[in-house]
Amino acid sequence: METTAIKQNSSVGIVEKQYYTFAEPPGEMTLESGARLGPITLAYETYGEFNARRDNCILLAHAFSGDSHAAGHYSSDSKEDKPGWWDFMVGPGRGIDTDKYFVVCVNILGSCMGSTGPGSINTETGNPYGLTFPMMTIGDMVDAQKALIDFLEIPKLHAVIGGSVGGMQVLEWCVRYPQMVRAAIPIATTMRHSALAIAFNEIARQSIIADPNWNKGNYYGGKCPDMGLAVARMIGHVTYLSDEAMRRKFGRRLQDKASFSFGFDADFQVESYLRYQGSKFVDRFDANSVLYITKASDYFDVVEQLRVPFNKDSPETLKYLVVSYSSDWLYPTYQAKELVQTLKRSGQDVSFCEIEADCGHDAFLIADDRLTHLIRGFLDGIS
Amino acid sequence: METTAIKQNSSVGIVEKQYYTFAEPPGEMTLESGARLGPITLAYETYGEFNARRDNCILLAHAFSGDSHAAGHYSSDSKEDKPGWWDFMVGPGRGIDTDKYFVVCVNILGSCMGSTGPGSINTETGNPYGLTFPMMTIGDMVDAQKALIDFLEIPKLHAVIGGSVGGMQVLEWCVRYPQMVRAAIPIATTMRHSALAIAFNEIARQSIIADPNWNKGNYYGGKCPDMGLAVARMIGHVTYLSDEAMRRKFGRRLQDKASFSFGFDADFQVESYLRYQGSKFVDRFDANSVLYITKASDYFDVVEQLRVPFNKDSPETLKYLVVSYSSDWLYPTYQAKELVQTLKRSGQDVSFCEIEADCGHDAFLIADDRLTHLIRGFLDGIS
Repeated sequence: METTAIKQNSSVGIVEKQYYTFAEPPGEMTLESGARLGPITLAYETYGEFNARRDNCILLAHAFSGDSHAAGHYSSDSKEDKPGWWDFMVGPGRGIDTDKYFVVCVNILGSCMGSTGPGSINTETGNPYGLTFPMMTIGDMVDAQKALIDFLEIPKLHAVIGGSVGGMQVLEWCVRYPQMVRAAIPIATTMRHSALAIAFNEIARQSIIADPNWNKGNYYGGKCPDMGLAVARMIGHVTYLSDEAMRRKFGRRLQDKASFSFGFDADFQVESYLRYQGSKFVDRFDANSVLYITKASDYFDVVEQLRVPFNKDSPETLKYLVVSYSSDWLYPTYQAKELVQTLKRSGQDVSFCEIEADCGHDAFLIADDRLTHLIRGFLDGIS
Repeated sequence: METTAIKQNSSVGIVEKQYYTFAEPPGEMTLESGARLGPITLAYETYGEFNARRDNCILLAHAFSGDSHAAGHYSSDSKEDKPGWWDFMVGPGRGIDTDKYFVVCVNILGSCMGSTGPGSINTETGNPYGLTFPMMTIGDMVDAQKALIDFLEIPKLHAVIGGSVGGMQVLEWCVRYPQMVRAAIPIATTMRHSALAIAFNEIARQSIIADPNWNKGNYYGGKCPDMGLAVARMIGHVTYLSDEAMRRKFGRRLQDKASFSFGFDADFQVESYLRYQGSKFVDRFDANSVLYITKASDYFDVVEQLRVPFNKDSPETLKYLVVSYSSDWLYPTYQAKELVQTLKRSGQDVSFCEIEADCGHDAFLIADDRLTHLIRGFLDGIS
């Protein structure tokens, strides 16, 4: 990995996506469902350097449609080259300081951003998996990440940090590999989906499945279910915002017109915005990955595992920083408080902060000094 | 209309749908868009009897996918025959007492339950309107109802009552025909849609439009856009519920299975329920009507009209009872309070009640003595 000169509060600079393919044999995993999957490749990126003991590693877990590109740029000359999704948080002198920490971010299993997913080639058939891809869980995603962490010879993670579906991965790390984790920062997440969250995911899935181009998942190389996928994204996008944020951002303002069209064109800015979000998503994401990842997040449920002192064999407890946002109605603060109570009853060392913000669930993806200070202070305080 | 014997707190009994077709000439209306529409037929039902002065009439305005069948049964022998949507509220001795009041409920213009809508025959072409049906507004719906009220020789309405999109019609009645209305009960409604409400409507519309069977609205007599319409209904249905109600009603309970299917079948009850709601809606509602009515509700905005004392020529003020539900996140209580403040500043006589209920927006469609007592008391107090 090429890096630019390190300076206070700067970007990590130019980064490169790397790939790890599970070594043969067996080169495969047994998933929670009992199905076997392999070969498995994971796309990942790293920022910063190992210290001598290799105990300064922070694992970032990305959200539903995220990727391994958490920080920096892929090139220096392209204006189209967007920084990583948490670039404002990760870098020399930033909240997650790459002068101190070696940071890893892995594209989740089942996604379409370089890691093995339903759009990958099934080596047994020579064709893309489609629906022959086995159903996987958040735990399976974490097990795959664990293989990469072992490959990188990291004995113990300084911290695991992530928001939303990334926060679910954080909790699965604590449940599955407590001895591998010193501290955890689950942000804007939940111990398990409410019926409301499942409902929105199911509607998104049905929207994709309703598109004739979806063709039971066999659309690779042909027409893709773009219309269904766009509607699915529009649904998701609304759940990431909030009433307040949408009022502030759009209100009832009209899009490029002075009065109503009295037709089915987009009259309001919010309509135009959602259509744009839908069409943009279609260009970068695979519909089948939406099906698999939403289902994994619906299945996710660590309430029972967190209820018992899961670190019985060790006197150590994990340190947690739980963060919620006041206007998040997908995973509201009351669910974060349930997580905090559950962890405290299990003897864990828990800090909690609800950040007042009107931008809804997606707030953790928007630069905000309060989250930056919270994370930096918490990481510095881990012994 | 045939009625059964009247007794305390009983059903209105057997009722019959009636039709009113605008008399020729001109037999048509000029809509708010400037477009002309005709001939126009309205389906309606009435319950109770006129008094001598014909001033005991209550107009009920139904919600988005409702119809004129507010009370009673169409037949006495069929087990399939559901009572009207507000049967628990309307009848002898009930909240809206048909021993005292003559109650009218009209299917809205643009719907598909007997009144003229996009599925009706365009007499100029001999084919269903489809998208040649002109865009209409909530005000147009009310203008059409006014024609029926005039036809019935009702000089002044004792009250106009409705929830949700029905509440919007109530407010349009007060704005357009204040001299025709003594009192108004807008329930679970708003003066105008927020960006969030527009967003959900737009997603529902896009879901229908994305269905190839929609065919730009020309599907009558062929395959209907059932898949898109079902997804649209699922979206709408979730907005009518609440986080609390869904947790209570479904939680994470599985549907007819002991463990996860690890496939895309409905695992959770909430998934199964939504699929059922979607498929049931397809059997009774026209996709184009969804497009037109959602657009009308997005256009609806009476803030400016309510801000001024709209009844200038008369010393009378209207009496209002504004009702909201604590768990309604489609038209939250803060929006009802904005309505109350606006009305009070305009010198109107306003009562307000927020009903604590966890069932979300649709709460007014569920029997609840509190709403019944509120409405009965308010109606009795109108001089």
